[in-house]
Amino acid sequence: MGQQAASIIVDWGTTSLRATLVTAEGQALDHLETQQGISVLAKGEHEKVLLETLQPWLTAHGALPIAALGMITSRNGWVEVDYVHCPAGLEELSHGTVTRTLPNGSQLVFLAGLTDPAGKPFADVMRGEETQVVGLGLASNRTVILPGTHSKWALVADGRIARFQTFVTGEIFSLLMNHSFIARGAANPPVEDAAAFRRGLKEAAGTGAMLSLLFSARTGGLAKEISADELRSYVSGLVIGQEFRQASEEGWFKAGDEVAIVGNDGLNGLYGVAASTFGLTVKEASGSEAIDGAIAILKAACDRHRDV
Amino acid sequence: MGQQAASIIVDWGTTSLRATLVTAEGQALDHLETQQGISVLAKGEHEKVLLETLQPWLTAHGALPIAALGMITSRNGWVEVDYVHCPAGLEELSHGTVTRTLPNGSQLVFLAGLTDPAGKPFADVMRGEETQVVGLGLASNRTVILPGTHSKWALVADGRIARFQTFVTGEIFSLLMNHSFIARGAANPPVEDAAAFRRGLKEAAGTGAMLSLLFSARTGGLAKEISADELRSYVSGLVIGQEFRQASEEGWFKAGDEVAIVGNDGLNGLYGVAASTFGLTVKEASGSEAIDGAIAILKAACDRHRDV
Repeated sequence: MGQQAASIIVDWGTTSLRATLVTAEGQALDHLETQQGISVLAKGEHEKVLLETLQPWLTAHGALPIAALGMITSRNGWVEVDYVHCPAGLEELSHGTVTRTLPNGSQLVFLAGLTDPAGKPFADVMRGEETQVVGLGLASNRTVILPGTHSKWALVADGRIARFQTFVTGEIFSLLMNHSFIARGAANPPVEDAAAFRRGLKEAAGTGAMLSLLFSARTGGLAKEISADELRSYVSGLVIGQEFRQASEEGWFKAGDEVAIVGNDGLNGLYGVAASTFGLTVKEASGSEAIDGAIAILKAACDRHRDV
Repeated sequence: MGQQAASIIVDWGTTSLRATLVTAEGQALDHLETQQGISVLAKGEHEKVLLETLQPWLTAHGALPIAALGMITSRNGWVEVDYVHCPAGLEELSHGTVTRTLPNGSQLVFLAGLTDPAGKPFADVMRGEETQVVGLGLASNRTVILPGTHSKWALVADGRIARFQTFVTGEIFSLLMNHSFIARGAANPPVEDAAAFRRGLKEAAGTGAMLSLLFSARTGGLAKEISADELRSYVSGLVIGQEFRQASEEGWFKAGDEVAIVGNDGLNGLYGVAASTFGLTVKEASGSEAIDGAIAILKAACDRHRDV
């Protein structure tokens, strides 16, 4: 019975649609991915595309609850879902979903993103990471780091996401490595170098002058201290190290704290090294937080829907 | 007699060659510009290109001292000139030049860049800005700001450039506006908005968390606080404001100080507004610092050469 399909989680972004067929316990039974992201779809096409894509599963298993998350819930997607406001837990996030019934009877539940009205200078936003935090669990008070293009630091307190803050670390790294004069000269194809990454972290920890620090990607080469093979990891250390230093100054942690690192962008290992460098201990995440969180919110939303 | 051609200043960079015919007092008599930057020239072509380009002036005025500066003195240029070390004034910079005599008898003097071995984490470098500081004058002790892709803050003390520090402000701005998700949505063609610039400065002054601050370029739009027309100037204010905040924390100034702002990148006005926001008074520069400095170093180098 543990193998019985219970729901479908659809991560529908700008460039792809990724669907997972899962059991009630969150075990993945099947997975599919297409390039039919929202950027190639016109208004009115979404339902047809979804039903065609999920056809084999819906035929085999009948109507199933379906959670849809990602940019599909944004202004440029299918159904724009308003952001839920912090503090928010399972109740608030499930209340913020938008549900429609598909022709075959499946409940399609669009998950909401989260906004922190206390963000400075403007209300901060996330879309998807709140689901991962729910999947990690809201029972323990803690700081959760979600590395990515736009990394999020979130505080779980009293069973809810109390507040969060965005750091655009991954985007700055990508800009520097792909388009800048500063990082010109990095080895191609890219090389990963753990020692150079730690060196970047160490330099980043020692200064608040980020705009000056980044120039060391060039002066390190001129000084023959950073080789072309080391440059990419060194710059990665600089920007991730700055994220931790700035988060520390913003009050997100002090040395000795435990944090959780959650995400699927392949960055958790690097962030773990950074956390250790800044004196933090790291709670291991399972890697299934996105699915687990979507199932939890989907279930709460369907239960609520049934009650009404 | 004030109109007599005394020397030629050649600013020879990656993508262009810009030459100015000047009097002994630094008055520009003529100017020419070509696209024969070093990126399109092979080793061995430089002398021929220079002589052809300057031919009309050399024919009219005979042999003249010629100062060459810019990337032409780098590894990828014509003659690689070693960096002069801080602290350095007119004597050290003229001593660091490399001179060769052209077939027509003209002294061609390659100006040296400057390095600050005390730079953290690696020795800092400039190539061209030191000439502008010389042109501004070394008699008064002061902080000089040279805005640009890689802005420089330099300290003049005891007649020499004592130290300097690079901030990659202009490059980060360009990356954000041309390639980032964060600043997507800015009006095109670009719009300048003085109030939005000041708003960016103010927000930048208030936080050390630059990686978080930059996300306000997006959240400001979502909050309908920053319009597409305002976005470019707002982001400009964010990054220039961060440069000033970080420079302040690095000890470059305190409120009430006077600074000089020197450069020809069209940024002096914005930097003047930023300086004012941070409580600084600004000494006006003439705009002729690059030519004046090159003439001063060229003269000192030629005098030295004559003495030997």
